[in-house]
Amino acid sequence: MSSGRYFEDFTIGQRLIHALPRTIHGGDISLYIALTGDRSPLSSSTEFARSLGFARELVPDLLVFHIVFGQTVGDVSYRAVANLGYSDVRFLRPVFPGDTLSTESEVIGLRETSGKDAGVVYVRTIGSNQKGQEVLTFARWVLVPKRNPASPSPTTSTPTLPTVVEADAIPVPTVLNLQRFWDVSWATGSAMRWSDYQVGTRFDHPGAMTIEEADHMQATRLYHNSAQVHFDAHGMAGSRFGKRLVYGGHIISIAAALAQQSLGNALLMAAWNSGTHANPTFAGDTLRATSHVVARAELPERNDVGAVRIALVASKNLNEAEVAALPAPGATPRNPAVVLELDFWTLVPR
Amino acid sequence: MSSGRYFEDFTIGQRLIHALPRTIHGGDISLYIALTGDRSPLSSSTEFARSLGFARELVPDLLVFHIVFGQTVGDVSYRAVANLGYSDVRFLRPVFPGDTLSTESEVIGLRETSGKDAGVVYVRTIGSNQKGQEVLTFARWVLVPKRNPASPSPTTSTPTLPTVVEADAIPVPTVLNLQRFWDVSWATGSAMRWSDYQVGTRFDHPGAMTIEEADHMQATRLYHNSAQVHFDAHGMAGSRFGKRLVYGGHIISIAAALAQQSLGNALLMAAWNSGTHANPTFAGDTLRATSHVVARAELPERNDVGAVRIALVASKNLNEAEVAALPAPGATPRNPAVVLELDFWTLVPR
Amino acid sequence: MSSGRYFEDFTIGQRLIHALPRTIHGGDISLYIALTGDRSPLSSSTEFARSLGFARELVPDLLVFHIVFGQTVGDVSYRAVANLGYSDVRFLRPVFPGDTLSTESEVIGLRETSGKDAGVVYVRTIGSNQKGQEVLTFARWVLVPKRNPASPSPTTSTPTLPTVVEADAIPVPTVLNLQRFWDVSWATGSAMRWSDYQVGTRFDHPGAMTIEEADHMQATRLYHNSAQVHFDAHGMAGSRFGKRLVYGGHIISIAAALAQQSLGNALLMAAWNSGTHANPTFAGDTLRATSHVVARAELPERNDVGAVRIALVASKNLNEAEVAALPAPGATPRNPAVVLELDFWTLVPR
Repeated sequence: MSSGRYFEDFTIGQRLIHALPRTIHGGDISLYIALTGDRSPLSSSTEFARSLGFARELVPDLLVFHIVFGQTVGDVSYRAVANLGYSDVRFLRPVFPGDTLSTESEVIGLRETSGKDAGVVYVRTIGSNQKGQEVLTFARWVLVPKRNPASPSPTTSTPTLPTVVEADAIPVPTVLNLQRFWDVSWATGSAMRWSDYQVGTRFDHPGAMTIEEADHMQATRLYHNSAQVHFDAHGMAGSRFGKRLVYGGHIISIAAALAQQSLGNALLMAAWNSGTHANPTFAGDTLRATSHVVARAELPERNDVGAVRIALVASKNLNEAEVAALPAPGATPRNPAVVLELDFWTLVPR
Repeated sequence: MSSGRYFEDFTIGQRLIHALPRTIHGGDISLYIALTGDRSPLSSSTEFARSLGFARELVPDLLVFHIVFGQTVGDVSYRAVANLGYSDVRFLRPVFPGDTLSTESEVIGLRETSGKDAGVVYVRTIGSNQKGQEVLTFARWVLVPKRNPASPSPTTSTPTLPTVVEADAIPVPTVLNLQRFWDVSWATGSAMRWSDYQVGTRFDHPGAMTIEEADHMQATRLYHNSAQVHFDAHGMAGSRFGKRLVYGGHIISIAAALAQQSLGNALLMAAWNSGTHANPTFAGDTLRATSHVVARAELPERNDVGAVRIALVASKNLNEAEVAALPAPGATPRNPAVVLELDFWTLVPR
Repeated sequence: MSSGRYFEDFTIGQRLIHALPRTIHGGDISLYIALTGDRSPLSSSTEFARSLGFARELVPDLLVFHIVFGQTVGDVSYRAVANLGYSDVRFLRPVFPGDTLSTESEVIGLRETSGKDAGVVYVRTIGSNQKGQEVLTFARWVLVPKRNPASPSPTTSTPTLPTVVEADAIPVPTVLNLQRFWDVSWATGSAMRWSDYQVGTRFDHPGAMTIEEADHMQATRLYHNSAQVHFDAHGMAGSRFGKRLVYGGHIISIAAALAQQSLGNALLMAAWNSGTHANPTFAGDTLRATSHVVARAELPERNDVGAVRIALVASKNLNEAEVAALPAPGATPRNPAVVLELDFWTLVPR
């Protein structure tokens, strides 16, 4: 449904089989590096990935997320006016160049707004590879306008979603073997171990990245994400923003890449607990990132790898001192320069 | 001849063997998606392409066109001041990642302009793969200045070119088998069949795309197209445009990608009947696209697939209402916002 | 050491094993073409490369340079305020898609500046493939600030570096066989031989290329080069430049691509004798290139291939007449429009 669903077009339990399976090429990894600055060691080197048990280099986890997300846009959020949140995002299985991703969603919640001109739609999305194996699952909710404010209201139904992915639900690739990680750790440039991530530590990451229109539009097209707010300068000139919006997922990728500069040996993004696009970002904005170590978890039956919970914050157009003065996530009111809060689990060698 | 031929440098029957064969990588498909928003199902998924009889995913037909076209620029149109038209463009055979394209052209017509300072050069171009199999053929004509207005005029010779590719000349890949298309049609997100394309139907496609300098220059370089008007801002500041021109082929790709949003199951671009770059496009312009169903043709000995003839129009910097008010191609005078008219045959499952 | 070393952090003989090995995909070649306009025949076509003895198409030599260089940035030049020069750069072995590059450097010289607030660091860098074979070696020196001007000065030690790579040190791939080059020379579009490169000849290359922020940032990220001056518009607004700087290596690539338009059959960049980034380049600048034939050398035990020494000059925002009036490299004072002087050996069929 390329022209997009209104709120009335969704029903609880509705199953949406999304179009356009996408085969991922080695060159997609290159393009993702060029567009975001990603430095995932498991994606950068075939040999490094093999030394840890994988068949070859992995598609970056966030690239998998964006492609699966992009496949849902035409059916779920083409007409959405806000992407409200994510929950229970789990990266279930590694994806390799040559794999083809297909995606389905189910409507798991509906809630009309008090103004009765729009509603919140909750979906559970599952991306699978060409063997039918699930590689990614997430819940998200979006604000979608009604076609007609006079349409009857659906029964309110909001799903129960976890506020945090419990340790025993954090996916760990079965082939991953970090017993010999320290022999090859030169490749990551870091000696940090799981036990070095002390809860309460804060990293104000050193780099900054300015976003150009061509960068975010290329990234968003790469993911087959067709949301018009990112592409139509002529139309957006008449919006309340006056210009194109940057896809929120691009902000996640930029912030995660900036964070890689100091989150040593954070090898895989295993799960997200929650995510919020706190403020819009536009071309010309310069992003900085801060990470807070929120928790650490042992993983069932694994003594080679543990999970670290990070609260990642992206802010815009602040200098280093201003970023250092930002409070941790949760402080109110939120600083208007904050554009993203993402709470995730990452896997780190023990 | 990298510095380019003047009108005097062409002779009827002249054969031009173009430099720089180009091997196409899987990553070229990714890059083409990133630069244009292309959503061709046969290019997006290995498995979908296999389910319809192909060895693997296809290189997007327009990417093949641009690479073959780009190979001709140094010899044919490096000094051209206008790309006047295309005729009898036929996509003869699918191209796959790993294939290498090489191109030759023959001068098939010459006509000096009445001002005697330039002339129209007609060429027939053929692109072939590494096995020597022809994959694309087209005629085009360009306006090329004379080195010296006093040079003698050549005998005028204009080729006879078809105004439309007849149904029995529309190429259909021999391996293409759409008998079981409907089992996998979920992948395209559309239930449209050949018979649903009613002659006279008009689609004002919902999306819009703004063009950035970096986008069109990257696309044009990707095709090894070296025409200076696209790259030299310093030099073009002194031209009548005052700025760089966008490669007309990039407009074709953007318009075709916008059209994919509603031309359901138009799986392959089989042939172009004609094409006109009606007005120049510049970075900052926002494109919209409209398709008119002009004709429908049965194909010899095929009951699984038919051809649909589309007149695709791209316009710039109009809103939806203004696009909806544009007349069909052929109305005079042409609206100055129209930048492209492309008349092509596409293949649709029956 | 992602936050970067100060001058005090370097010691003579120090060995730096750089992070993040990088596997190169076919799509990296496509992306390099899109970002720079590269037209290397040996990188463009699998079949052409095979016809000259290689297993398949080569990764462009400058792409190899940029990736190896990029790997050193975090350890060597993250805090550098100037990239002062290169010497003894030798492309030791071809690199193919699928290869993974890893890099080490050794500190070979240290010299504090007279102001005692910074110092010059000389490093020898070696990039190797996944088999441990060296593919590239170079010396470079950078100006790095001191953490504390009061820190003691190290003993001055400056390395002895060749001003030119001698003919018997110019690497020639052992598998390269140009005995049958002339059968396939149609692919390069040029009939130029080694003997056609007359010493003293000057080529003012016909094209020009304008640089966009998105182009240079994408290229620089592609190489995992994390130097902040290229990415942080907010921070650079307060610098003496007032804006982002273009990575000097991007200028080399653009100039080399412009030069390919007339340096016929210059098939491989074998070595650099020296290189200087004479002035900064910014987005919006338009580059032109001039090549001077400085020398020609026979190569030991090879009668099919010879070396040509080129002094390549890139200038910005000049028209053709102004470029034609530029003196050869070495004239003083240097024209402020000159941004690059690169003295290199290229291999040409005899």
